[in-house]
Amino acid sequence: MTQEVSCLVDGRPADAVPVDDRGFQYGDGLFETCRVEDGRVACLTRHLARLSAGCERLGFPQPDLVALRAEIESFVAAMRQGVLKLTLTRGSSARGYGPAGDTRPRRVLCLSPLPDWPSEAQRDGVRLRFCDTRLVINPRLAGIKHLNRLEQVLARREWHDEAIRDGLMCDTRERVIEGTMSNLFLVTGGVLHTPRLDECGVAGVMRSVVIDLAEREGMVLEIGDISRHDVRYADELFVCNSLIGIWPVASIDGMNDYPVGDMTRALQDRLAAGETATHNWYPR
Amino acid sequence: MTQEVSCLVDGRPADAVPVDDRGFQYGDGLFETCRVEDGRVACLTRHLARLSAGCERLGFPQPDLVALRAEIESFVAAMRQGVLKLTLTRGSSARGYGPAGDTRPRRVLCLSPLPDWPSEAQRDGVRLRFCDTRLVINPRLAGIKHLNRLEQVLARREWHDEAIRDGLMCDTRERVIEGTMSNLFLVTGGVLHTPRLDECGVAGVMRSVVIDLAEREGMVLEIGDISRHDVRYADELFVCNSLIGIWPVASIDGMNDYPVGDMTRALQDRLAAGETATHNWYPR
Repeated sequence: MTQEVSCLVDGRPADAVPVDDRGFQYGDGLFETCRVEDGRVACLTRHLARLSAGCERLGFPQPDLVALRAEIESFVAAMRQGVLKLTLTRGSSARGYGPAGDTRPRRVLCLSPLPDWPSEAQRDGVRLRFCDTRLVINPRLAGIKHLNRLEQVLARREWHDEAIRDGLMCDTRERVIEGTMSNLFLVTGGVLHTPRLDECGVAGVMRSVVIDLAEREGMVLEIGDISRHDVRYADELFVCNSLIGIWPVASIDGMNDYPVGDMTRALQDRLAAGETATHNWYPR
Repeated sequence: MTQEVSCLVDGRPADAVPVDDRGFQYGDGLFETCRVEDGRVACLTRHLARLSAGCERLGFPQPDLVALRAEIESFVAAMRQGVLKLTLTRGSSARGYGPAGDTRPRRVLCLSPLPDWPSEAQRDGVRLRFCDTRLVINPRLAGIKHLNRLEQVLARREWHDEAIRDGLMCDTRERVIEGTMSNLFLVTGGVLHTPRLDECGVAGVMRSVVIDLAEREGMVLEIGDISRHDVRYADELFVCNSLIGIWPVASIDGMNDYPVGDMTRALQDRLAAGETATHNWYPR
């Protein structure tokens, strides 16, 4: 383990999980990546809600969210700023896909530093690229943040230029779905668009915050299929996740100089005002 | 860890892996499930070849197969009969899909008892079912035995009757691909058929043994698309994997009483004669 990381496994300080944990064996689990600000987890209620939805989908027993929230709040209380990663697996079992008998889910909380992103990213926008790796269509696993993430791993291996902040991924039907670590929004003719995520992709917590902000601002929002053509000719483009908030997109594959538009700025401002989260999640 | 299991992590006795292992974080790894007989791993060369192919596909450095083989041979030497599971992950890294800097793959060897299957399975055949869970089409990951196995986990959760030995899975184009833990062969009009696995599925080591045996026996083999209709009207049907060898299929979903046919018996006999493996893998 790197020195800056500290972890709790089932409530006890530990830096390892049993080899027979089904998260390790089969990716049989879920995770949440959360921003910690001033000893609190931003959007914790939303993270726990998505975790709960994932448990439903994978057939895990529902976690005790009150106890889990209390454990999280205690664990992050002393952290000024950073990242909490919460992993929940189906727990240990004998070898074999079918867990024999009752398994008890295992929870892992890990704190790590916030990545060192340049502050210009928020202001001027970031560079993206299109990935060759495709997201497969799989309604059964779409939306939830499960531990089977080889598609994202392979996509992220496609580039080494750290100045490219994320890669956009299409599904096998050539629809643009999301970044490897972010969700995508675009503005065309005054309408905010974001891809539907019922066939693949991860329904990000920050995406849900942005959708709520947009509705509150009276913006017209459409959730549907988005093509590369739509992306290319968008008036504004941004990506979001729980750690970065909203990053305007400045260019993709070195082309298409997108301006940082009014709707992107308005959403950034509303986000900074912190009215939608369970508390003000966003660094001033 | 259960008592009957013993493990080596990177060559040292251990029953845990670091939380930051990418196998646990993202399913970023590969595995092999091997049969141990009289202190030797059956088909070890084939297992290592598939592992090596998986490393190529995921962009892992190639393992030192000579050293790995030596470690395995030493580890299993005292075991009369059982299962060796070999897991190889991309190793530990900081949070994030892109492993920052060099990661060193981590290998985990675990021994466990052979499941207690009834001996009639070999002789009389087994009952199967069709699963509702679909395999998604993903050529990038097809064939290799990676750690993203939620499809198999969800499929195996569809039934609880232990007398049903495996579930057949179709892909999203309704082609029959494999069992959750086995590969499928069928005989129709004297021709042996098995599904192509270039779009999804796991290319099992025992499948490759059976293919070689069939060729040696002068059987006509076709690797292609197989429909439920093909399965329903097959003359003979069997599933195979490295632990079970060849199981004739007696029925699917309680229907279709398949006989244990001549070609299935011939392949079982050739397998028992042990001429294709690196040594006689099969219990007499």
